[in-house]
Amino acid sequence: MELLKVTTLNEAQDKILSALEKLPLRIKKVESLKALGFVLAKEVKAQEDVPPYSRSTVDGYALKASDTFAAQNGEVILKEVGRLLIDEVSDKTIEDGETIYVQTGSFLPHGADSVEMIEYTRSFLDDVAIYKAIAPLENVIEAGDDIKCGEVILEKGTRLDVENIGILVALGIKEVEVYEPFKIAVISSGDELSPPFKEIKKGKIRDINTYTLSLEAEKAGLEVIYTSLKKDDKKELIKTLEKLKYEADIIVLSGCSSKGEKDYTSTVFKELASEVLFHGVAIKPGKPTLSAFDLETKTLLVGLPGNPLAAFLMFKLLLEDGLGKLFKQAEKRIALAKIKENVSSNSGRATCLLVDLVKAGEDLLALPLYTKSANIAILSKAKGYVIIPENKEGLKEKEIVEVVLK
Amino acid sequence: MELLKVTTLNEAQDKILSALEKLPLRIKKVESLKALGFVLAKEVKAQEDVPPYSRSTVDGYALKASDTFAAQNGEVILKEVGRLLIDEVSDKTIEDGETIYVQTGSFLPHGADSVEMIEYTRSFLDDVAIYKAIAPLENVIEAGDDIKCGEVILEKGTRLDVENIGILVALGIKEVEVYEPFKIAVISSGDELSPPFKEIKKGKIRDINTYTLSLEAEKAGLEVIYTSLKKDDKKELIKTLEKLKYEADIIVLSGCSSKGEKDYTSTVFKELASEVLFHGVAIKPGKPTLSAFDLETKTLLVGLPGNPLAAFLMFKLLLEDGLGKLFKQAEKRIALAKIKENVSSNSGRATCLLVDLVKAGEDLLALPLYTKSANIAILSKAKGYVIIPENKEGLKEKEIVEVVLK
Repeated sequence: MELLKVTTLNEAQDKILSALEKLPLRIKKVESLKALGFVLAKEVKAQEDVPPYSRSTVDGYALKASDTFAAQNGEVILKEVGRLLIDEVSDKTIEDGETIYVQTGSFLPHGADSVEMIEYTRSFLDDVAIYKAIAPLENVIEAGDDIKCGEVILEKGTRLDVENIGILVALGIKEVEVYEPFKIAVISSGDELSPPFKEIKKGKIRDINTYTLSLEAEKAGLEVIYTSLKKDDKKELIKTLEKLKYEADIIVLSGCSSKGEKDYTSTVFKELASEVLFHGVAIKPGKPTLSAFDLETKTLLVGLPGNPLAAFLMFKLLLEDGLGKLFKQAEKRIALAKIKENVSSNSGRATCLLVDLVKAGEDLLALPLYTKSANIAILSKAKGYVIIPENKEGLKEKEIVEVVLK
Repeated sequence: MELLKVTTLNEAQDKILSALEKLPLRIKKVESLKALGFVLAKEVKAQEDVPPYSRSTVDGYALKASDTFAAQNGEVILKEVGRLLIDEVSDKTIEDGETIYVQTGSFLPHGADSVEMIEYTRSFLDDVAIYKAIAPLENVIEAGDDIKCGEVILEKGTRLDVENIGILVALGIKEVEVYEPFKIAVISSGDELSPPFKEIKKGKIRDINTYTLSLEAEKAGLEVIYTSLKKDDKKELIKTLEKLKYEADIIVLSGCSSKGEKDYTSTVFKELASEVLFHGVAIKPGKPTLSAFDLETKTLLVGLPGNPLAAFLMFKLLLEDGLGKLFKQAEKRIALAKIKENVSSNSGRATCLLVDLVKAGEDLLALPLYTKSANIAILSKAKGYVIIPENKEGLKEKEIVEVVLK
């Protein structure tokens, strides 16, 4: 049995990120309204102010604030020289002693620098009595207060969320340049695996990884171009991957352990790729994870354990982590919590510990979830996970831990 | 001006939830592999054990643990009576003194209760020397350890995530009964609003809410059946909504303030619905939010402010909160943090405070994000929000707050 030369989780993550950085970026245009989840290939610079003109934030009287200062000692009388509906614009410039009635959202007339709320006024014919002194800019949003013309409002590499689409809409930007999603192929291999939706023979179990990893890949913004369940037949597998590496940017292969060969996937990857990035990661669960990169076709190959929970977590820890760093997508959601009890872990190897979170007064407690079988069912009970680094021996009760939320 | 009778945020949330509970639930079948994001209309009960039979978790020798106890005082010799590949099953029952070689994942032969790791054995012809005493069940996953036959593994009302789909696949469940998504219509109304992707006239601003609210509604699992930008023309609006209430379960109407009438939406809703649920919510931003329910057509009407940030937050605080409670979807992600500075708020009214989160040693700091204009751009800088309740006057520096993560 070949002894695995293991890599730390951080090293593995760095290598995956470097490989992702080498994948070809293809640019295309999409309509802003259909750009949710895509990554910007070019920064977005505002070509106009938002709002495009100064606006009132209240119903009331637009005026020069200096005209209201005397109201500290009693009312001030101004002359109403106009009324503006919300979508009306006036060419009139307000002079000292003058005011124009405006609505919430109205264009702020020229010459005015503030708006007196209607509650502090009384009007009679053309006269408006002002009862409160206000400061310049009071109850006004200035042109460009939200977004300034020329400002870089969304950086290149941003994965667009709903709020980002809102910004594009606010700026009237109809389409944006984005990267085509990386193409991924997801393969499960193992003689013990059966397609899930038929009767299974004794000795077989259902293939889960093809489905969970594909769905998770789509969530991570990847395009799944191929999925398949294979027998552990090295020659056949290599033939399939030889073709796939010209089409896919990333190939994920889980399982391959049914022949009892510990270096099965490694042999396959060596046939296909110019460089093995790492072979074994010092983490529990997920140790038999490996990766290679083919320089000619620019393909990242990732070999994951057959165990569905370990495969799923390593997919998150390596590929989702890497994509998150490569693109400025929503950062990982982190909560600091106190671990509820002592947790042991082997030094020399990191542990990915699933936890539930429970509020206890001013504390947030992280409850370790243990499972003998490491089945995927436990993941749906977890709120997140804690990484115990390889240079740390376990956790002490009440110790503060960083929980990465699902 | 009609004085708004305001409702607290909690009261408003309760009323929205009660209304959502009255909406008609329509059931349909979907393939499990296409069920992501749907809500289960029926609990899922396991019809078989996972794994379906006891399995070895290591490569080694299946045996009776009692046979290894003597290994504490030196080696024990057992007789190898078979070898199993990962997908092979044996009818043979292991007797005292016998062992069968198995692989990680192999079926555990009858009579065996544990597996000795190969590292602690040596074999010569049919003899296997055992060097370590092990306990019953060591290195074994029993049938049903992951999921027990008969167990309710997913409750009715669960919104299905990737891990849940993994569970369905593991159980060989090909299709599930889910609720058809609620149908929602999203309308922006305001004379000052223009469609976003053309030149806008002075005095106009671009409509954002139609787009941000629709995209957010889809994220929340709703089906958007209608979106439109309208003028503030009460008769026209009522005509449109009269028709829509027979098709939509939820109608969201934002804006309607361009005529300066504070009770514009309320008048519209009173024409359409049998009951006004609330009119004004004691929260900043989002006060001019109201809701009504039409018993005949079972339609929930929600009127949101025109301000894009306020509209977006109130959509989350009312509809997403309510749907989250109605269905057992992923709970809100919460982080406890220390507020970085004093924050003032008006008592008598809740505040929805946007915050960024920064780690500082063992502390997680929540940095308040202020904006004069309350534009949606600020939301893309926020990591989440803190609700300061209406019966609390502000926050004190270093106070622990609950941050609802985006």
